[in-house]
Amino acid sequence: MTQEQRQPLPNAARTVFFVSDGTGITAETFGHSVLTQFDLRFRQVRLPFIDTVDKAHDAARKINEAFVTDGQRPIIFSTLVKTDLSKVIRQCKGLHMDLIQTFVAPLEQELGVKSTHTIGRSHNIVDSEEYKNRIEAINFSLAHDDGQSHKNLASADVILVGVSRSGKTPTSLYLAMQYGIKAANYPLIPDDFERGKLPTSLYAYKNKIFGLSITPERLAEIRNERRAGSKYASIENCRYEVNEAENMMKREGIRWLSSTTKSIEEISTTILQEIKPNHRGQY
Amino acid sequence: MTQEQRQPLPNAARTVFFVSDGTGITAETFGHSVLTQFDLRFRQVRLPFIDTVDKAHDAARKINEAFVTDGQRPIIFSTLVKTDLSKVIRQCKGLHMDLIQTFVAPLEQELGVKSTHTIGRSHNIVDSEEYKNRIEAINFSLAHDDGQSHKNLASADVILVGVSRSGKTPTSLYLAMQYGIKAANYPLIPDDFERGKLPTSLYAYKNKIFGLSITPERLAEIRNERRAGSKYASIENCRYEVNEAENMMKREGIRWLSSTTKSIEEISTTILQEIKPNHRGQY
Repeated sequence: MTQEQRQPLPNAARTVFFVSDGTGITAETFGHSVLTQFDLRFRQVRLPFIDTVDKAHDAARKINEAFVTDGQRPIIFSTLVKTDLSKVIRQCKGLHMDLIQTFVAPLEQELGVKSTHTIGRSHNIVDSEEYKNRIEAINFSLAHDDGQSHKNLASADVILVGVSRSGKTPTSLYLAMQYGIKAANYPLIPDDFERGKLPTSLYAYKNKIFGLSITPERLAEIRNERRAGSKYASIENCRYEVNEAENMMKREGIRWLSSTTKSIEEISTTILQEIKPNHRGQY
Repeated sequence: MTQEQRQPLPNAARTVFFVSDGTGITAETFGHSVLTQFDLRFRQVRLPFIDTVDKAHDAARKINEAFVTDGQRPIIFSTLVKTDLSKVIRQCKGLHMDLIQTFVAPLEQELGVKSTHTIGRSHNIVDSEEYKNRIEAINFSLAHDDGQSHKNLASADVILVGVSRSGKTPTSLYLAMQYGIKAANYPLIPDDFERGKLPTSLYAYKNKIFGLSITPERLAEIRNERRAGSKYASIENCRYEVNEAENMMKREGIRWLSSTTKSIEEISTTILQEIKPNHRGQY
């Protein structure tokens, strides 16, 4: 290898490792947020379930190989709790972003207690109330998708309304999966617009209703992907439905937002702030 | 206020703030991982969409109020990118965990470039390919839930199989939502066990199939929540179905795991490692 070849290539993508004793989702979610701030491409490798010294040595070997192959130091986001494991990784050639150690030490000092060293896999998630609530909420949201069932609306935390394809289904599922929120959703359809009223079964639960709207142009685009050239997808019909739905929501005093430029994460966060479901009282 | 009253009460819950210019989901996910390591209860408050100086001052007021009410310093996990906003928050009385600043500075040095200061809301997520893939995958997974459709199985990234209520549906939705993986799922039912074969339509896609199993005891418990006292939920029937399904998966050479003590996050991470769907080549 000549001296020249050892120079890092300016266009070569850095390798980023997410190392965790659990799923690595925390390391990855967080790492993505930080990397988003750099206008560069990264080769990303997740190394989950690193929960023994042997597996840590395997991970270390992969990281060191990337250093040799890339000719540049890899970046390592790690959430290893056990010190014998994190020690193995810290010996690798790379830029270490140790998420746990960086923040746990100052917290131990502030709180005056030692950390229990449980994270990820070692934590028995499946038996927790929070996990059971999430699974129950997913089942609820699926059973109450698209106005399928009027049953148990009393136990819904949130009822989303809006025209077909305004983003109700993915938002309901996200609310359930991320927060354990039971989110029913109900389409507003031309029958409702002719009657000029919400579906009757919803009136008892008006305080839980949240509306989604969307621009007619974006709606037509989405509907055309499914049913190209149909009346349903036409811009005229989309304009009519969106206009009627927005007027109805204003008339009924329903809080709503436009989903056009918002992700399901952003929509869900706004809904939580507005509706404040009971069992998420802390928000 | 006497000197005594100023002492922190040992049993009082600390207040934890998650402050973000976006949804706050990164700050919260990460903060939870760290707080899980302390065997203490925390009062948690999310302050999302803090994207103006005025909103930052509002947030600062809430944090300082918590300090007065609790008589203890609140803990602040923040992901504010703009320095004028983070400066306002840093002046609050609290323990500051500044996730961005802590890791961005060393990364800027390592990468030899300045960060672009985009995160959360300012980043136009909705128009990205990755976001569109996630929404498309959610729609696909819903349309292919519980063997509903044989259409387009060729475009599935993963096909989950297993007895009814073994965890296929929430896992499919999680794979779609978190990773943009198109995950179909197919129940293994007594008809399949009698024939001793997988559903015929699946044979063409054996390399994409992943199985979920579960202990008969846990399965009976879950099924009894839905249909108490039925033959379907009886322990004898659950033992029969699980035994047949596991034998079939072994015979057909299908990779599988037991979902009994695993969260949907853990199951999904394992599936990604085993199946390595094409468009997630980096994993």
